[in-house]
Amino acid sequence: MNTRLLLAYDGTGFGGWAAQPGVRTVEGVVTAALDRLHGTRGPVTVAGRTDAGVHATGQVVTVSLADGPPTEALHRALNDVLPPDVAALAAETAPEGFSARFDATARSYVYSVRRGVVRDPMRASQELHEPRRLDRGLLDELADLVVGSHDFTAFTPIETEHRTFRRTVEAARWVDTEHGLAFEITANAFLRHMVRTLVGNMIVTARGDRHAGTRSFAELLEGAPRTAAGWTAPPHGLCLVHVRYP
Amino acid sequence: MNTRLLLAYDGTGFGGWAAQPGVRTVEGVVTAALDRLHGTRGPVTVAGRTDAGVHATGQVVTVSLADGPPTEALHRALNDVLPPDVAALAAETAPEGFSARFDATARSYVYSVRRGVVRDPMRASQELHEPRRLDRGLLDELADLVVGSHDFTAFTPIETEHRTFRRTVEAARWVDTEHGLAFEITANAFLRHMVRTLVGNMIVTARGDRHAGTRSFAELLEGAPRTAAGWTAPPHGLCLVHVRYP
Repeated sequence: MNTRLLLAYDGTGFGGWAAQPGVRTVEGVVTAALDRLHGTRGPVTVAGRTDAGVHATGQVVTVSLADGPPTEALHRALNDVLPPDVAALAAETAPEGFSARFDATARSYVYSVRRGVVRDPMRASQELHEPRRLDRGLLDELADLVVGSHDFTAFTPIETEHRTFRRTVEAARWVDTEHGLAFEITANAFLRHMVRTLVGNMIVTARGDRHAGTRSFAELLEGAPRTAAGWTAPPHGLCLVHVRYP
Repeated sequence: MNTRLLLAYDGTGFGGWAAQPGVRTVEGVVTAALDRLHGTRGPVTVAGRTDAGVHATGQVVTVSLADGPPTEALHRALNDVLPPDVAALAAETAPEGFSARFDATARSYVYSVRRGVVRDPMRASQELHEPRRLDRGLLDELADLVVGSHDFTAFTPIETEHRTFRRTVEAARWVDTEHGLAFEITANAFLRHMVRTLVGNMIVTARGDRHAGTRSFAELLEGAPRTAAGWTAPPHGLCLVHVRYP
């Protein structure tokens, strides 16, 4: 029985999504919970493999369960069994063959930045604190440059599992929030660290600091090498908020 | 130079306010930060000694600093030196002899309860998740009973440092929040665990469960022994939000 789950988690206590021996991962605790309840057939398929420290409020996974449970009961039972930093927001039966990963047409992330001298201790693991002056208008211009199809080689680690570096960004913008800013981005797919390195380079540019290299932000978006780009913002400001399906 | 600080902290990573050898405490990190910046004369005096896991958005402390710093510079420097889970919201020079503890006329706490089947992983360390049915009207009635001067012996651990058990509650009420409920309480002073044990006993009563003992909630408020009261709600839902001065 192919089952689709909508998950939320606080990434602080996890070594990322993907199961690794000896590391507490989201995949590890979700698989353990499902195994305990129903027995899984084959691995859990995930829409967005989040890194260590990255959060999700709209992660989607599909999994084949050994028996066909009523999904309402599964939903309730999962939340009883999962640890406090993961929640199943929804559980439903999915069409046979439906894949959370391959059927997704877009992913949306939000990167949260707190402004002002004083950080909020309650949100310290969920937003970047950036008290320095930022050119707000420049941030908007940089976000506009990100929209479209680009070669994002400069925005992912050199040691990579990716084979192609072109991705299509459908929407990218900075919005003002109650205590700062947030960068919202939607693309067909993302490279590893792509949002964090985009955010880091936009912030460094908007602070008026020089890039590590001499290329403009626009040049970085057209296949510049990783070494041409600068700072990768830390993972804790990032959250996977939505995955779109046809 | 007598200095008054307004502090916020996420209590999750602390063994409470009070310094203890070998334990990470808020007093410990604040004292270390002040010592590093200015050198303190004598101990930090605190308005509300919070327990392990309890948060604060409005903690007040006074401390005598070895030299008289401009408080604006101190404020900025403190936030640079303090760890991410503590922030100095304000710093100002206080009148000689002013004490954060002895001059306080009231303390206010909020206890947050999330309702509904699904918890919020991002707030798991900042609110109690209570998915069971609660008699909302009964909660209001119980909160009304808490207001006034009572002997709160039943609401603090048997092993106690307190010598008197009568406290005067100025205001107590349950309010509806976006995702649940919050209990707001203001009193001249509090016994250890008092808010958490009040909340625990109100919730157990509103669930329709029997108390550990046979006394009514009203009887518990008039000097019943600790053993007559039931559940102490966990610390992570509790936050010190305000301290009042004349």
